[in-house]
Amino acid sequence: MRGMRMSNSIGTIFRVTSFGESHGRCVGVVVDGCPAGLRLSTEDIQGELDRRRPGQGSVSTTRAEGDRADLLSGVFNGHTTGAPICMLVWNEDRDSSGYEARRWTPRPGHADYTAHVRYGGFNDYRGGGRFSGRITAGFVMAGAVAKRLLSDALGVEIIAHSKEIGGLRASDLGVDAIRMNAQGNPVRCGDPEAAERMVESIMKASAEGNSLGGVVECHALNLPPGVGGPVFDTLEGDLAKALYAIPGVKAVEFGLGQEISRLKGSESNDEYAMKDGRIVTRTNRAGGILGGLSDGMPVTCSVAFKPTPSIGRAQRTVDIETLEEVTIEIGGRHDPCIVPRAVPVVEGMVAVVLADHAIRAGLIPTVMEVER
Amino acid sequence: MRGMRMSNSIGTIFRVTSFGESHGRCVGVVVDGCPAGLRLSTEDIQGELDRRRPGQGSVSTTRAEGDRADLLSGVFNGHTTGAPICMLVWNEDRDSSGYEARRWTPRPGHADYTAHVRYGGFNDYRGGGRFSGRITAGFVMAGAVAKRLLSDALGVEIIAHSKEIGGLRASDLGVDAIRMNAQGNPVRCGDPEAAERMVESIMKASAEGNSLGGVVECHALNLPPGVGGPVFDTLEGDLAKALYAIPGVKAVEFGLGQEISRLKGSESNDEYAMKDGRIVTRTNRAGGILGGLSDGMPVTCSVAFKPTPSIGRAQRTVDIETLEEVTIEIGGRHDPCIVPRAVPVVEGMVAVVLADHAIRAGLIPTVMEVER
Amino acid sequence: MRGMRMSNSIGTIFRVTSFGESHGRCVGVVVDGCPAGLRLSTEDIQGELDRRRPGQGSVSTTRAEGDRADLLSGVFNGHTTGAPICMLVWNEDRDSSGYEARRWTPRPGHADYTAHVRYGGFNDYRGGGRFSGRITAGFVMAGAVAKRLLSDALGVEIIAHSKEIGGLRASDLGVDAIRMNAQGNPVRCGDPEAAERMVESIMKASAEGNSLGGVVECHALNLPPGVGGPVFDTLEGDLAKALYAIPGVKAVEFGLGQEISRLKGSESNDEYAMKDGRIVTRTNRAGGILGGLSDGMPVTCSVAFKPTPSIGRAQRTVDIETLEEVTIEIGGRHDPCIVPRAVPVVEGMVAVVLADHAIRAGLIPTVMEVER
Amino acid sequence: MRGMRMSNSIGTIFRVTSFGESHGRCVGVVVDGCPAGLRLSTEDIQGELDRRRPGQGSVSTTRAEGDRADLLSGVFNGHTTGAPICMLVWNEDRDSSGYEARRWTPRPGHADYTAHVRYGGFNDYRGGGRFSGRITAGFVMAGAVAKRLLSDALGVEIIAHSKEIGGLRASDLGVDAIRMNAQGNPVRCGDPEAAERMVESIMKASAEGNSLGGVVECHALNLPPGVGGPVFDTLEGDLAKALYAIPGVKAVEFGLGQEISRLKGSESNDEYAMKDGRIVTRTNRAGGILGGLSDGMPVTCSVAFKPTPSIGRAQRTVDIETLEEVTIEIGGRHDPCIVPRAVPVVEGMVAVVLADHAIRAGLIPTVMEVER
Repeated sequence: MRGMRMSNSIGTIFRVTSFGESHGRCVGVVVDGCPAGLRLSTEDIQGELDRRRPGQGSVSTTRAEGDRADLLSGVFNGHTTGAPICMLVWNEDRDSSGYEARRWTPRPGHADYTAHVRYGGFNDYRGGGRFSGRITAGFVMAGAVAKRLLSDALGVEIIAHSKEIGGLRASDLGVDAIRMNAQGNPVRCGDPEAAERMVESIMKASAEGNSLGGVVECHALNLPPGVGGPVFDTLEGDLAKALYAIPGVKAVEFGLGQEISRLKGSESNDEYAMKDGRIVTRTNRAGGILGGLSDGMPVTCSVAFKPTPSIGRAQRTVDIETLEEVTIEIGGRHDPCIVPRAVPVVEGMVAVVLADHAIRAGLIPTVMEVER
Repeated sequence: MRGMRMSNSIGTIFRVTSFGESHGRCVGVVVDGCPAGLRLSTEDIQGELDRRRPGQGSVSTTRAEGDRADLLSGVFNGHTTGAPICMLVWNEDRDSSGYEARRWTPRPGHADYTAHVRYGGFNDYRGGGRFSGRITAGFVMAGAVAKRLLSDALGVEIIAHSKEIGGLRASDLGVDAIRMNAQGNPVRCGDPEAAERMVESIMKASAEGNSLGGVVECHALNLPPGVGGPVFDTLEGDLAKALYAIPGVKAVEFGLGQEISRLKGSESNDEYAMKDGRIVTRTNRAGGILGGLSDGMPVTCSVAFKPTPSIGRAQRTVDIETLEEVTIEIGGRHDPCIVPRAVPVVEGMVAVVLADHAIRAGLIPTVMEVER
Repeated sequence: MRGMRMSNSIGTIFRVTSFGESHGRCVGVVVDGCPAGLRLSTEDIQGELDRRRPGQGSVSTTRAEGDRADLLSGVFNGHTTGAPICMLVWNEDRDSSGYEARRWTPRPGHADYTAHVRYGGFNDYRGGGRFSGRITAGFVMAGAVAKRLLSDALGVEIIAHSKEIGGLRASDLGVDAIRMNAQGNPVRCGDPEAAERMVESIMKASAEGNSLGGVVECHALNLPPGVGGPVFDTLEGDLAKALYAIPGVKAVEFGLGQEISRLKGSESNDEYAMKDGRIVTRTNRAGGILGGLSDGMPVTCSVAFKPTPSIGRAQRTVDIETLEEVTIEIGGRHDPCIVPRAVPVVEGMVAVVLADHAIRAGLIPTVMEVER
Repeated sequence: MRGMRMSNSIGTIFRVTSFGESHGRCVGVVVDGCPAGLRLSTEDIQGELDRRRPGQGSVSTTRAEGDRADLLSGVFNGHTTGAPICMLVWNEDRDSSGYEARRWTPRPGHADYTAHVRYGGFNDYRGGGRFSGRITAGFVMAGAVAKRLLSDALGVEIIAHSKEIGGLRASDLGVDAIRMNAQGNPVRCGDPEAAERMVESIMKASAEGNSLGGVVECHALNLPPGVGGPVFDTLEGDLAKALYAIPGVKAVEFGLGQEISRLKGSESNDEYAMKDGRIVTRTNRAGGILGGLSDGMPVTCSVAFKPTPSIGRAQRTVDIETLEEVTIEIGGRHDPCIVPRAVPVVEGMVAVVLADHAIRAGLIPTVMEVER
């Protein structure tokens, strides 16, 4: 049977390489190309990691992962050295007992079947292996470095929240409301009222052995104009590529997204104006990007996640050894809705892409200017 | 003012490099990494190019471009040699007269302002220069090579059509209907009835000095399972990145796309079954991709375009020299709706990405097996 | 039979893509990632191209190539735009008559056999096709852009000459002597006396139907310290890789090169000193590179070329169709010694690599600062 | 002060990313793109690592490193999974006490000064940090995977030895002699008699507080013809780039190397012949490479190392804080000659490059064919 090669690196100068498996020894990343002299500590990484930790309240898996960031290289005396930064999280609470039994019966909606085909059956199938949502712990660690870099060098802030869960949509909110409210509820939604209904909906789905999807909305503030890399390395293209690496993503759009295709040109163009001595647009339907380049307005995107494929119901599949149709039921501990935990992952991947592009734009010095 | 570097190449092994400007001497591409021994002629390239040619009927620009494919290297005795294939289209009907006058007043919705910031004013601003839709002539030429390769080596077929224009949506169609009908109407829509309404809607918008957007839907048939490159080089991610290089794209989604985020897990999972001795899914909500890898079902995506930003109405902008707010009107010859001409461009970019991934998957030999 | 893919691009940010064949329509390059605002004209390119032109005196081929640089994109109003620069030379004096006859009998020392294996016989075999020294016309054009960039942005100067031909070695010369003398003789040697003997030696070899090799020595002056990209993208490594792309190169060394391996540590270390307020080394045995990074001293390398494999003598080979051993004689117009014409090619490739690394080092702005 | 970014990855499909510092917590690598289904165990890695271990006899440093390979990901049930393989060696015997004192006085011949400039003083200067020879432990681990892959898939064997130390040159040896003898003496030389003199010479230099350099010669056997990637990714170019990543290398040559430039064409061309039904060359002056592609003969290269720059003698340098000229003496435990320990490192880097190119050539399946 045929297989294929993985490509576990992303970025051109600020470059992230992912490794590790759900039920192996660890998941981690190597971040290469970070400028020297950036203040960075294990606590910086841990803070972001804590935001994606499972076991927080009733809406997520009960797998109890301590998820302690372990910083192996690239930081010396509290600053980055310019050398590659290797960070990982050791896997502790691994219960692999159930996976052997269902090795040959791929779960619908998971990568079990496609991974089996690709790697000729040699893939680590326990808990999805390389295809588990757990690898996003590494994405968050890389994102923590990128966020710190963007913040220290350019004052860029990245804020995401759950815009929609199970079809329940938050009201349209300014970034201030999101920043204030999103961390105060278990679904990480900027609209507290909608958040309550989302929680109820998740619990109801969970009780029914079902799962929900949703949409994460993300804003990047203060990015200077002119960042991006036409014609192929557009901001939209590189952000979309990075976001599609998060398991479960099925749509990525910018600004008004698909809605803008239903407007007329006179309704969709963002006109220019002067404000406080700067060129701005009067509206931001384009999501801060024109011609693949930032225009100085907030960069906004929406990322749609399908419902968690692991559900507590009987499902039809095929035994890939005997090629017989069979019915399976999936046990294990799973999130009925992955969206809240995906919020810091989306922020992290957006940060990784913007850090790379800001460096390519010459906006970040190769050695940070710090007082010593 | 700062600027930044372009990145005009895409792909890992089957690699496309774009060059040229709207009002320069030519637009073209170099395709590197194509297997040797592929039958290829200028006519193959020309056939695809003709499908995107402007000046076809009432719905597009009157700029009369002959757009003759010129094949400069990499083909010998009717077959590819394995060497880079340089192809270009010479620019003939260039009317650059109007552009000097509006050099300093960026058009809303265009890349005029962001390109100016990025290149410190050195960019070729005539007709959008590097940011013009005209560069997609090169994408189509590269796509023609990729399509031929996918077809000859794997029997993969790629079919797109205009799914929606100005909010008017075609009915849900099978691929056979699209293949039969889409080339028979000026809007390239697989639903002839919807096509008529779309044409009317475009002509109405055009008469009002306005423009429309829309959605192109694309299907890739017969792709074997296991193609793609997790964790970062997913099929979705690489397709999205390539599609966002087409000017005007603001959303890319796969399978049910954003709609799948509103379903429950029990409604969104595609169950497996056996059919004619092959493992298939009973539904294809995931658009033929799981874990970033093809699952053997048709790969389907939707690409949303914003309305053409060039409209015949007064618009407010800023003079970037004087920093004063001004009002402009844009003349010139523009498409009131770019969507029909984008159909072969979407097909071409999808083909380029799938060709690269199929090669990476080991599915295409490095020398084509041909009878000689 | 198996084949493989070419990789016709080099560089990370300042990136060169080569295309074209010896007896096809043209040879050319696309240079991507050049900063905007660099003064550049066809004459700049032509000047370098003229230095490698054949037909100059008795020591090179009589193939009469006008070799006019044709600049297709990326330059507007006398400056680079930041868009990809496509440049080519049209092939004019093509005499392909002799190649069909010896298609199946690979010439010893040429790439005929290896190219045939790799491309399954689909390669353009006329005049070596993609493997001809003629593709270095493209290298020289890319080098001309890189030289101009290095010179305007950093004052870096790159000077090469023929250090050795047919075992005849020039005396050790300072850069000033090389600059003054190397262009004044047909072998491009900085030592006029040695040059005379080299010319005689080439003419003698030519008369005997034989050929000579030699060594090109290259110096890059004024490169600031800290340029390079450990651990893998060292200056030595990237320069060597670029130089090995020139047909016929068999050894690349830096500073004292292989000689340094025969010294003791106390004889080979370059001690530091202060000079005019700058840190310098008292000697330059390391060739200006430590730890893969420039140290501020001249970067010096030596590139050894094997003798031209085309000789006017009977040689034994194998008919790859019949697998019989046969004897061939090669006609055609060939350089008895390629070294003099390789001098600007070596300079060009060194310039391409240093331009890329200087950009990566943050030493060259993304938009050139020019008076307008 | 300016700095720059590192690039710590090499390879296109079989891709190695290096991390770690001499006196940090570990040194390691991530190997991405290895086919699934390759038999691989910690013992395979350890075996290669043991060959470069210091503390073996009188000719190397007394730093006592256990250097136990720790395999973190990518291997499951004794086979590679196709996922990235993270391997590292924890640093145990770290004595960093001496480094603070000489932080500001760069050692001649080391990267202390260039690294300081590049990273603005943020680099981990202890023991050379990222520039230490210790990072080659990672190269050897990656090389162990590559060797296993080349051997299992293609029967390729890679054998190096110390050809020359301190100017003492081994006699010309066949590969069989090298294979039999090189591991049996502390200098890893295939010529036992020369080995004795080399040992004496090293001990004498060591006693005098001095150091020696030398040349490692490497042979790769059984590589099929047609492997390599013109025009820029030549076998010579990619091997040279990889080899220059080993600290101390100053010359890389292939086949006869610089010597071939002193021959005539009639003396340097390798004529073809038939042998056992295969096309071979009668001689191998080109080192098995023509046009950047393997020709089926053994690929041979020579790698020259400068003497270890750490010597026990007073040396002049500059205090980079005060800019005053000063004299330093270096203590610590250093190898008087690094060449013997570099033998497995050279083999490893050659293996990494050949594995990548063999995969690119389509010669290695994406899933290994194994009996299960």
